[in-house]
This record gives sequence, structure tokens and C-alpha cells, in this order.
Amino acid sequence: MKKGCPYGTHRVIEPKGVLPQPALKIDNDMEIYDNEILIDVQTLNVDSASFTQIREQANGDVEEIKKIMKGIVAERGKHQNPVTGSGGMLIGTIEKIGPALEGKTDLKVGDKIATLVSLSLTPLRIDEILEVRPEIDQVDIKGKAILFESGIYAKIPTDMPENLALSVLDVAGAPAQTAKLVKPGDTVVVLGGTGKSGMLCLYEAKKRAGVTGKVICIGSRDKTIERVKNANLADVYIKANATDAVEVMNKVAEATNGEMADILINVVNIPNTEMSSILATKDNGLVYFFSMATSFTKAALGAEGVGKDVTMIMGNGYTKGHAEISLQIMRESEALKKIFEELYA
Amino acid sequence: MKKGCPYGTHRVIEPKGVLPQPALKIDNDMEIYDNEILIDVQTLNVDSASFTQIREQANGDVEEIKKIMKGIVAERGKHQNPVTGSGGMLIGTIEKIGPALEGKTDLKVGDKIATLVSLSLTPLRIDEILEVRPEIDQVDIKGKAILFESGIYAKIPTDMPENLALSVLDVAGAPAQTAKLVKPGDTVVVLGGTGKSGMLCLYEAKKRAGVTGKVICIGSRDKTIERVKNANLADVYIKANATDAVEVMNKVAEATNGEMADILINVVNIPNTEMSSILATKDNGLVYFFSMATSFTKAALGAEGVGKDVTMIMGNGYTKGHAEISLQIMRESEALKKIFEELYA
Ligand SMILES: NC(=O)c1ccc[n+]([C@@H]2O[C@H](COP(=O)([O-])OP(=O)(O)OC[C@H]3O[C@@H](n4cnc5c(N)ncnc54)[C@H](OP(=O)(O)O)[C@@H]3O)[C@@H](O)[C@H]2O)c1
Ligand SMILES: NC(=O)c1ccc[n+]([C@@H]2O[C@H](COP(=O)([O-])OP(=O)(O)OC[C@H]3O[C@@H](n4cnc5c(N)ncnc54)[C@H](OP(=O)(O)O)[C@@H]3O)[C@@H](O)[C@H]2O)c1
Repeated sequence: MKKGCPYGTHRVIEPKGVLPQPALKIDNDMEIYDNEILIDVQTLNVDSASFTQIREQANGDVEEIKKIMKGIVAERGKHQNPVTGSGGMLIGTIEKIGPALEGKTDLKVGDKIATLVSLSLTPLRIDEILEVRPEIDQVDIKGKAILFESGIYAKIPTDMPENLALSVLDVAGAPAQTAKLVKPGDTVVVLGGTGKSGMLCLYEAKKRAGVTGKVICIGSRDKTIERVKNANLADVYIKANATDAVEVMNKVAEATNGEMADILINVVNIPNTEMSSILATKDNGLVYFFSMATSFTKAALGAEGVGKDVTMIMGNGYTKGHAEISLQIMRESEALKKIFEELYA
Repeated sequence: MKKGCPYGTHRVIEPKGVLPQPALKIDNDMEIYDNEILIDVQTLNVDSASFTQIREQANGDVEEIKKIMKGIVAERGKHQNPVTGSGGMLIGTIEKIGPALEGKTDLKVGDKIATLVSLSLTPLRIDEILEVRPEIDQVDIKGKAILFESGIYAKIPTDMPENLALSVLDVAGAPAQTAKLVKPGDTVVVLGGTGKSGMLCLYEAKKRAGVTGKVICIGSRDKTIERVKNANLADVYIKANATDAVEVMNKVAEATNGEMADILINVVNIPNTEMSSILATKDNGLVYFFSMATSFTKAALGAEGVGKDVTMIMGNGYTKGHAEISLQIMRESEALKKIFEELYA
């Protein structure tokens, strides 16, 4: 049996020397190396920015979506959208565990897990696409995937529906980071607060900012804002177009008496929202970009261009305990659990 | 006289509603609005990532470089490289000040300034390219530019050569951010420490990390490493290829007894160095991406992909006092001043 590198570099075909995530093509042969785990895949949860792009390219046509997805995997050996660069995650059952992991992992054959590493670096083979659920970015398939030794995962909890857990785990990084950043008294804006990660971030922000803080939700549609309002997830609700920097700035100024945000969390799924985020944040404030549609240069040069001294953090999808933190929200908040069950499960 | 927006949105031609930096095309007519400043341009200091791309596209041919640069400005009304998205800055003399700025600005006609906002948002007209200095990314031109009301600038100091000041101001954000981040006892890696911003970052890092800290310089060439060594800017010197994540990780592990970096500052000018940066940093450490060749998705998904809990900051080109902090280095360090005079002035 072949010996593998913990990071999966042994699977990289092109270009040589890089890791699986930035690689253009990786080996998706399903014969495992000694430190790999083989997964029998059930559902792919495609990253929202990626799925939005694929759906648009397919003009909403499901057969076309299937073709694009199969094409991506055929070309790259992984489901990494060539336009957005992003992936998503998957749910499946452990089929085989490499002998080098014995005693090192708490997994056993038959366990159902969600991978918490991006599909953009996960060797994947799609044999058949069974069902596409475009409203929730989920795709049921027949196929296999590989988890590397350094790859993180969560066992699927038994106290909630599987698809619910998958939806939450997909964006687990955002609420966990929010929990770590927000302090009592903070004014927090969640740009895209009406979305999946947005609602989880609002919940954590409100919990941490407390009664002396102010949590502001920005969405673009009456319907989604109404939903969040009914669950009482924020203190203030703003309807605005996230790509219109001046509109967002003015509306946040109005809601904060011109003080602006201490922390802005960007969880929209569309491009060109860097400037709104920067202008809605106060000097010495912090912008946390979780959106995969974020452009590095637009953010870095945009902040400089308006002379704004804000700290800009790139949303690391992983932070310690993120799976537990986000699943816990579903147990704590009846209102949010209901929304998530209706929308995503 | 027409009234302008402080951020220059009145100059945006396409797409409407965005700010000048993300805009595809802005108006470079040199009749000023009431809150604008007209600059008679002397020298453009093109961003290193951008100039490297242009030089490669031109196969090093100076006439071809001129053609590409003129083409960019003709198409966009600003010098924003369409591949890297980045700009640079300029030096010039104040020719006209809009009446709405009276009493608001300390500038007067005839002052020589360097703009500290990116060329990627600055209305620019190039009448003639006089000289290209490819080794230092500087281009002398005959032309005009506009500074918006929110635009930041620095008066050119009189105690050092102009081109020296321009070189330093171009990358002022990096050493100033380094100064704010590094604490006594920190292990700091500067990836690209042999470059222009790299050397300034090393200087600030060593000053802040102090005797209990460790500052590590990574470059790719013997010659540049020798130069930095002679000036005694770091504690440890590593020759490595920044795109080879495993090589960088192993060499940093060796230099730190496996502890890895508390803070890694990325100031290289080439793509695909996100994973080296992440793997060379310890869990709960901080990666500061100043390089304009950084990819947001590669960093965000790469960190998640290896389960690394690092904070990743996007280098904001502006931070309060950055011009003063960086120019001060030239006054403090005779060794660095000598290198900068030789290389860039
Ligand atoms: N860093 C990571 O590891 C990671 C992991 C997962 C996801 N993500 C990223 O996080 C982002 C959000 O994911 P998600 O699953 O939460 O997406 P989602 O549920 O589709 O939510 C998208 C949000 O964006 C808002 N939005 C869209 N267009 C808007 C506009 N013009 N103006 C204002 N708001 C607008 C939506 O508001 P309305 O519905 O009110 O229009 C909604 O709140 C995506 O970019 C995704 O790629 C990152
Ligand atoms: N955020 C902002 O506002 C802002 C402003 C200005 C500049 N920047 C960015 O900062 C970065 C650095 O700018 P600079 O002017 O300092 O550039 P520079 O002087 O050209 O330095 C580039 C550095 O990268 C190193 N490098 C290149 N290829 C390498 C490789 N394969 N392996 C290891 N090291 C390698 C070089 O090392 P060797 O010479 O030893 O090969 C050198 O140290 C650029 O990306 C630029 O776009 C950002």
C-alpha cells in the first residue's frame, strides 16, 4: 500500500509542488493510500458562491447543472468551481480506513460523517447525480471521496435531521469566528444577515454583544428580512443592496447615529461588496470577510483608497470547535432551528 | 464648477454605483470638480506585482511596456493592471486646488507630494512616457492626475532624495502594520524579506520583537539574502522558494525547533504563496498578507483544508501614521538607507 503525505500532496497531478487546494488537477483514483479514508458519498453541499455561479451559467436548468458539475470533477478530480475557486462539503459513510491511521482516529467503518474540509481539495468521483436541490445548494450523488490525514470532519449528530446538520456544518466557520470576535457593547453589522451563515452569525453576535450592544442585519429582500425579524435575531433591520457602497454606508450611519460598525461580518454570496463593508465600518474597526466572492485587491486597495484604517480578516473556514459551536445553536434556538428545518432540511 | 463626492464616485463611468477602485472605467478629464486637486505628474511608481506582470507580458521590452501602460490608462482612465487589479502611486506637483477644499487642506499650489492612494483609483492622463526604470518599477511621465477629497498623500520630505522617499512611501503600509502587530518575544517570519517592503518589515519586526524574539528572513536568491545579512536586519536567513509550501514549512520548522511563526508577513510579489504562509505559522498565529498577488479563496480554503486555526489579515495599504513610520526608518537606519539609495533612488 502506498504511503501518503498528511496534507494529500501525493494526490497532486498539476502543478507539482503545490497542495491539493490550489492544484489544478488531483488524482481521484479511489484506491486509498495508507493514511487516507474512503467515503461513500451521499450528498454534496456546494458552496453558495459556487452554486450561484453554476446555476446562472446553466440558466437554472437542472440537467445543465449536472453536466457542469460532472465536467468540473472530470477535469479537476475535485469539485472546485473554476470561476469562484471554492468548493463546499459532503456527507457520507466511512467505507475504508488506511492502516496508518489505526489508533490515531476515532472513526470506524460505517460511521456517517460530514467533511469539514472544502470540496475544492477533496478527491471526488461522481458515478451518478441522483437529485439536485437548487434552492439549498445540495446535490445527492452516487460516488466516492477521499479524506486526507489532516482533513477535518464531524460525526453527524443523532439529535437532528442529517440535512439540517449538513447545512449548519457547511458554514460553521462564520458563527464560530463571530463568537470569538464580538465583545459586549459592540455594534455589529451582518451584511447578508438574512442568509444561512448570516442568521447563525446574527445569533452569535447578539449573544456576545449583549444588551449594551447593537446587532444590525442587512438583507436585500422584504421576505427574508421579515423571516429574520420574526425570529428576533437582530436589533435593527436594513434593506439595502450590498453592492451599493454609498447606500449601505448611509443606512448604517443612520442606524448608528453616524458611529458606524465596530465589526462588520460579510456573508453575502455575490461579488463587489468590499467597499460597502469598508465604508460601513468605523476607523479602527474590523471587517470580517467570510464571502467567497471577496476580492483581495478590491478590499486591500479599496480601504487604502478611502484612507480607512480598518483591520480586514479573511474568513478561515476552520476555527477550533467550530462544528460544536454551530450545531449548538440549533439546540439553543428553537426559532432558528425551525427556520433551518423549513429552508434547508 | 461641478460639485464632487469625497470618494470620487462622480468620476465613475462604468459600472455605475461602485467606487473608483473597483470601477472598470473612470473619467480622466482634467477639468477639476470643486473638491478635487489637480497634480502635474512627474513619476509613477507602479505596484511591484503589477509591474512584474507588465514586464513579463512585454518580454522586458521597454517600448512594449510603454504601450501596455498607455493602453491601460486609455481604457480605464487610471493605471489599474487588469490582471493583478493593482496600481501603485505617483509623485507630482500641486497645480490646482478645488475651492471647496479651502481651509480644509494644508496643501498649496507648487507643493510636491506623493499620493498614498492607489493608482488603481486615481484619474490619470499620460501625455508622454519619458523614461522607464524597469529595475525599480518607476516610470517618468508627462501627464496629470486627480486626487479626491478623501485621498491621502504625503508631502515629500526635504531631507532625503525624492525617489528614495517615493520608494519607501509606496510600501509604507507594510512596515507600519508590522510595527503595530509584533510584540516582544514574537517569532516573526517575513516571506519576501529580501524585497523592498520586506526589508522595512524586517527592521520594524526586529525593533518590536526585541532580544527575546526571533526574526526570520526568507528570500529566494543568494545575492539578495547576502545584502540583508550585511545590514543585519534579521536573526535567521532562509533561502527557499515561496511557492513550495512543504519546503518553506520544513525550513521554518528547523529554524524554530518546530514551534513555527507567531506572525508571518507575506510580502512576495508572485502568486501561489498562500499555503507556505499558512503552514509556516503556528496554530492561533497570524498571517499578514501584504502581497497583491494573494488569492482570497486560496487562503481561506487552504487554511480550512489543512485544519489550521490561523488569523489571516488582508494588508490594508493604509494605517494611521504609515508615511511617518516608514520615512522614519530611513532616518534611523544608516544601513537600510544606503541599500535603498543604491537600489531605488
Ligand atoms: N469561508 C468559508 O469557509 C465559507 C464556507 C461556507 C460559505 N462561505 C461563504 O459565505 C457566503 C454566504 O454563504 P451562505 O450559505 O450563508 O449564503 P446564502 O444563504 O445564499 O446567503 C446569501 C446572503 O447574501 C445576501 N445577498 C445577496 N445579494 C445581496 C444584495 N445585492 N444585497 C444585500 N444582500 C444580498 C442574501 O440576502 P437576501 O436573501 O435578503 O437577498 C443572503 O443574506 C458565501 O459567499 C459562501 O461562499 C464561506
Ligand atoms: N497592500 C498594499 O497597499 C501594497 C502596496 C505596495 C506593495 N504591495 C505588495 O507587496 C508586495 C511586495 O512589494 P515590494 O515592492 O516589496 O516587492 P519587491 O521589492 O519586488 O520584493 C519581492 C520579494 O518577493 C521575493 N520573492 C519573489 N519570488 C520569490 C520566490 N519564488 N520565493 C521566495 N521569495 C520570492 C523576493 O525575493 P528575492 O529577491 O530574494 O527573490 C523579494 O523579497 C507586492 O506583491 C506588492 O504588490 C502592497
